[in-house]
Amino acid sequence: MTRFSHPDFTAPRFQQLPDARFVDAPADGVLPEGFFSTTNLPTYVRVNGAWRMPREPRMDSALVLGRDGELWVREARRVEQGERVAVGAAEDGSEGIFVHAAAFLGDTGSGEFKFMSSEVSREKPIDYGLMARILVDERDRGGYPIWVTGPALVHSRARNDMVWFIQNHFVGALLAGNAVAVHDIEASVFGTTLGMSGTGEATQGGHGLHMRAINRVRAAGSIARAVEQGIVTDGIMHACVTCGVPFVLTGSIRDDGPLPDVITDSVAGQDAMRAHAIKATMAVLIATALHAIATGNMLPAFVTEADGSLRELPTICVDSSEFVVSKLKDRGTHQAFGVVTNAQDFMHILRLYVERELELRRVGRREPATVAG
Amino acid sequence: MTRFSHPDFTAPRFQQLPDARFVDAPADGVLPEGFFSTTNLPTYVRVNGAWRMPREPRMDSALVLGRDGELWVREARRVEQGERVAVGAAEDGSEGIFVHAAAFLGDTGSGEFKFMSSEVSREKPIDYGLMARILVDERDRGGYPIWVTGPALVHSRARNDMVWFIQNHFVGALLAGNAVAVHDIEASVFGTTLGMSGTGEATQGGHGLHMRAINRVRAAGSIARAVEQGIVTDGIMHACVTCGVPFVLTGSIRDDGPLPDVITDSVAGQDAMRAHAIKATMAVLIATALHAIATGNMLPAFVTEADGSLRELPTICVDSSEFVVSKLKDRGTHQAFGVVTNAQDFMHILRLYVERELELRRVGRREPATVAG
Amino acid sequence: MTRFSHPDFTAPRFQQLPDARFVDAPADGVLPEGFFSTTNLPTYVRVNGAWRMPREPRMDSALVLGRDGELWVREARRVEQGERVAVGAAEDGSEGIFVHAAAFLGDTGSGEFKFMSSEVSREKPIDYGLMARILVDERDRGGYPIWVTGPALVHSRARNDMVWFIQNHFVGALLAGNAVAVHDIEASVFGTTLGMSGTGEATQGGHGLHMRAINRVRAAGSIARAVEQGIVTDGIMHACVTCGVPFVLTGSIRDDGPLPDVITDSVAGQDAMRAHAIKATMAVLIATALHAIATGNMLPAFVTEADGSLRELPTICVDSSEFVVSKLKDRGTHQAFGVVTNAQDFMHILRLYVERELELRRVGRREPATVAG
Amino acid sequence: MTRFSHPDFTAPRFQQLPDARFVDAPADGVLPEGFFSTTNLPTYVRVNGAWRMPREPRMDSALVLGRDGELWVREARRVEQGERVAVGAAEDGSEGIFVHAAAFLGDTGSGEFKFMSSEVSREKPIDYGLMARILVDERDRGGYPIWVTGPALVHSRARNDMVWFIQNHFVGALLAGNAVAVHDIEASVFGTTLGMSGTGEATQGGHGLHMRAINRVRAAGSIARAVEQGIVTDGIMHACVTCGVPFVLTGSIRDDGPLPDVITDSVAGQDAMRAHAIKATMAVLIATALHAIATGNMLPAFVTEADGSLRELPTICVDSSEFVVSKLKDRGTHQAFGVVTNAQDFMHILRLYVERELELRRVGRREPATVAG
Repeated sequence: MTRFSHPDFTAPRFQQLPDARFVDAPADGVLPEGFFSTTNLPTYVRVNGAWRMPREPRMDSALVLGRDGELWVREARRVEQGERVAVGAAEDGSEGIFVHAAAFLGDTGSGEFKFMSSEVSREKPIDYGLMARILVDERDRGGYPIWVTGPALVHSRARNDMVWFIQNHFVGALLAGNAVAVHDIEASVFGTTLGMSGTGEATQGGHGLHMRAINRVRAAGSIARAVEQGIVTDGIMHACVTCGVPFVLTGSIRDDGPLPDVITDSVAGQDAMRAHAIKATMAVLIATALHAIATGNMLPAFVTEADGSLRELPTICVDSSEFVVSKLKDRGTHQAFGVVTNAQDFMHILRLYVERELELRRVGRREPATVAG
Repeated sequence: MTRFSHPDFTAPRFQQLPDARFVDAPADGVLPEGFFSTTNLPTYVRVNGAWRMPREPRMDSALVLGRDGELWVREARRVEQGERVAVGAAEDGSEGIFVHAAAFLGDTGSGEFKFMSSEVSREKPIDYGLMARILVDERDRGGYPIWVTGPALVHSRARNDMVWFIQNHFVGALLAGNAVAVHDIEASVFGTTLGMSGTGEATQGGHGLHMRAINRVRAAGSIARAVEQGIVTDGIMHACVTCGVPFVLTGSIRDDGPLPDVITDSVAGQDAMRAHAIKATMAVLIATALHAIATGNMLPAFVTEADGSLRELPTICVDSSEFVVSKLKDRGTHQAFGVVTNAQDFMHILRLYVERELELRRVGRREPATVAG
Repeated sequence: MTRFSHPDFTAPRFQQLPDARFVDAPADGVLPEGFFSTTNLPTYVRVNGAWRMPREPRMDSALVLGRDGELWVREARRVEQGERVAVGAAEDGSEGIFVHAAAFLGDTGSGEFKFMSSEVSREKPIDYGLMARILVDERDRGGYPIWVTGPALVHSRARNDMVWFIQNHFVGALLAGNAVAVHDIEASVFGTTLGMSGTGEATQGGHGLHMRAINRVRAAGSIARAVEQGIVTDGIMHACVTCGVPFVLTGSIRDDGPLPDVITDSVAGQDAMRAHAIKATMAVLIATALHAIATGNMLPAFVTEADGSLRELPTICVDSSEFVVSKLKDRGTHQAFGVVTNAQDFMHILRLYVERELELRRVGRREPATVAG
Repeated sequence: MTRFSHPDFTAPRFQQLPDARFVDAPADGVLPEGFFSTTNLPTYVRVNGAWRMPREPRMDSALVLGRDGELWVREARRVEQGERVAVGAAEDGSEGIFVHAAAFLGDTGSGEFKFMSSEVSREKPIDYGLMARILVDERDRGGYPIWVTGPALVHSRARNDMVWFIQNHFVGALLAGNAVAVHDIEASVFGTTLGMSGTGEATQGGHGLHMRAINRVRAAGSIARAVEQGIVTDGIMHACVTCGVPFVLTGSIRDDGPLPDVITDSVAGQDAMRAHAIKATMAVLIATALHAIATGNMLPAFVTEADGSLRELPTICVDSSEFVVSKLKDRGTHQAFGVVTNAQDFMHILRLYVERELELRRVGRREPATVAG
């Protein structure tokens, strides 16, 4: 069990510090403006030159100097009009109150008591505006953003948005597995994904449709030929083929088929992925633990610019749970920025913000306005 | 361990059924069009009048009649040109292939082998269009949609979208806890939620800001008075007060403060919530297990229309994980429709779709166009 | 929006049914024994020969016949002494109360209003006793249980328990990926997994240890040779080698190394896995989405016994979240039984129960007792 | 976008450092012992007195000095026999290799590249031995451990284990909500929880059983009276009553009933909880977000010993997901130690380890051995 020492209040840094200041509570259950809000850490209050610890410590409460001279930590609702309440914001003793944070929080961040300091949480805001600016910047400077996606992107009908990003030159290369291409092509050929309709219903006989889609592409010989022959007429793979965006489909042991384009040897697959990772200036990892961690493994945390200078390689990792992002970081991809949401919703809003950013930049350049969508 | 009987193929329903039909594989690893795609259930194939089980059963594969007369289940990639492959889609024997599904799947849904039959999954598409139509319908018919929300709605900056729904008459009543109002008011007064800035950074001294926000409202006496006095100038609670939308804030043991408007007695709180639940014609439950289940408990699964007819009470439950929705259903709110996503993204896209729906209806009515947002 | 019809109370099935029976509440807030507990579905109560719907419907409440003749749904706490409360348990009208469940719940299970009807939930009890009996039965009858595991099993120190199952003949074959073997061998050589110590601390220089472990096995030529040469002296792979339990390690694009034993071609890997899946009489899938779904894909839902009879193939799927089990079922492995827990804890308790089961059977056979562990 | 400067290699700290040392690869795909394992951070290698950055950086790979004098980062499997590979473990330049970690990882922990540095993860080992020692220590020194639990503890049949901890004096006080007591008493009276049998099946008519259990206790007047009257004959509440362990049941808006002992006012409930929190020397928070955060809010992070010295207040937080623990920490309870597992399994293993610890201490005191269970 960890034990802690009290601060040495005879040390020079504690000399010259003032007594804490107390102000009357203006009404029952109401604190004076500027009240000191407590933490759950050992706290020392200077009263008449002596540093004292208040009784019944807890966070989110007030420091009350009782009429009997006792110091208490008390919830605001229990403070009565006229009671003496400590004021101040500083926790370093400069206003007569010292929070002994270093002992407890020494190795977590800044050693300051804070809320919301976790690295990845669904409770944190998602800055779509920033992501949109980075994406447009990358495109404008000729960067090479690699997109790494799992099949949820297709299941959940973010297909159209992904197609939009491909067609509008935001995708340097697409790295994915067999399933992404299979469901995308099933959607093009049969209008379903894993036999599920666009409104989420399981269809009769639907369990075989992805096998039928695979079979047609195998008969054609490759995805590109299936596009040429009019078997695949829309969707993500169609957009890659028609826009000339390179894709790497790597195999896994759960693959159905696989499609003819899939690299079934995992070592050859890594080499093919790395050929793109070496060129990457940004990475967008969506709804895939396997491919995200594989890519993180082979990606530097930085980009070396043409002039030799270094910058961080922006790495966005989108998943429904905090776990995948934490796992990615736990395997060394510390630069990953986590977005905890549904892949479909992410794609839709990101596209919206990128469209707005494009419109802003266009308008900024004084060109005639058109409807942005 | 569950044991199963083979079907009784002497029964009348199995008489008159044809033999299965086999077609040559057109190339190595390519199946004939219309191939039968296997399941993992006991399967019987009629060959020369006899029902036989193939060897090495598995799903997603082909039925191959070997040259030695043996029946095999084989992955497409292992089928050679010219091998005899069963064709057909029916699993009821009418094309000579019978899948013994009833024995295994008797009590799960329709007794048919299907993919994607779970009730709640992040892999299912979210039908924002449908939800938007229901919301606009409810508003137009004078319905009473109750919105029940957790603090993630405020943390994650969906505040503006919630305000929009309140101001545009989509909210009959807002049911929430102390925290929703506290963070919303902290955002109005200090620009932070739990001390976290709008871009997700923990701010210095931020841990006390929600306490300061509470204290100001306590000093004012109520949220409505804090709005009147200009202490609270925007946000969800401000919109409720200024638009006259009723709200119920119920207390919990983790509340800071609480705010003066909070009903701290849970039984009185239930009564206050139920006064709205009785009138509800729709429920939108966002990012809160406690309040969602409380509301589900007191909500009928149906609405009785003025003419005495019955319809389902649309109940949308939004959460980052499947668990909360399953839990709600496990406690009897079977009518709940689950949306597995981030609350911020849900609000943003739902608003977008409602705006589009409004525009569609306006245009459909031939009224002059205005900017919709 | 789904609409529903009222039941046709003129139909023969509703004739001859009795009026509901009402009993006085014995005290304020206390209901008579045998009170009818409401659901949230349309409910009809027979009073003086007429079927009437009560007002303010909700679940978990009482049916009260007010002194004014009005029928109410009311929470027990609001019922006063002497008020008339309906009694009965039947919901089919046979006691004068009819719940119109079929209309609402027609396609979910039995059409009866129930709690806790989800298929997979952390809130459901885990029947370790049953799993232990099945495992011991399988061993005793010469079954072939395949174990399919992810690296969490090694990270989280369930290694010893897995070794115990291997050494005690509960494992027919082990199917896993490169990472399971890498971390297991890192633990044997360096005492860490991914550089993390046995108490969960990241160690200095630890990030390279798994690479050093891989390098030693590559130098030896194979895992078996590394065991022979004394490089690997304990753990899961060591137990497989020394006990002659076959293992299949299949490659993936996120593999480090890989180890020399890994089958890097995913199609060849599937064939190697299927050679075991064909023989399987049971499957235990632990903490791996990829390998669990791959195995589920190639596994029949049933076992054909030597005498030609059929039984379910017991399939246990263990994961920290409901999602993986639901996903497995959504891909057709409907027979999977989900256990939502931590892999380390699962292994520890399962072993404990298997040890108890073995002791029970031994004692049952009148052999002298020894300490079971 | 964050930009970084190269280190200033003219600075004194970089003088006197040696060139990196290179050793021949002993075979194709095998590195020399002691090889340097790369990170994904900017890395500088001293060759002939000059600091150079290798090409194609990634983690988990080797530094190879090509025959052409070029420096490469290369996966071990691609290294050929006889190629020159850098050796060394130090990343501070003292062996001729410098990893520029500070720039990138400045504010995360020690500024060193590490794996597995997340605070809460299901992939971390759970140290039951340590928790058992702390619990026994607390009991032996007369500490006051507070246990705070959610209903999963009862649902999932960890009831017996909780009873054992109560009966064996490991529980200073039990803080919970209405549902814990309701399900516990339903289990005693009817053998079900929320109508679900001990093997997890929903029972017919089961949805009303918890209401019947509540009604009997309301009729008795209190839980203690229900125990006296033989209505409640086993379980957690029974153990609290018969062992004299204080409990606090606080109300919430989702409560059924509630039971007569429940404090329905949340402010009064907080005061009742805090009376125990003030005395707490340890906290065990199991499967409850609401009560865990409430307790964390009112708990100091430290204990003041009788002699005035300070130690950390051990705070164990058990939940099925990382989220609850992160949320607790994000609200200031930084001392919380997270255990990500199923509540049932946690209780069972913790009891096992406490029993072992007791046996160890007893044996250590030379008392005669008995069977420990």
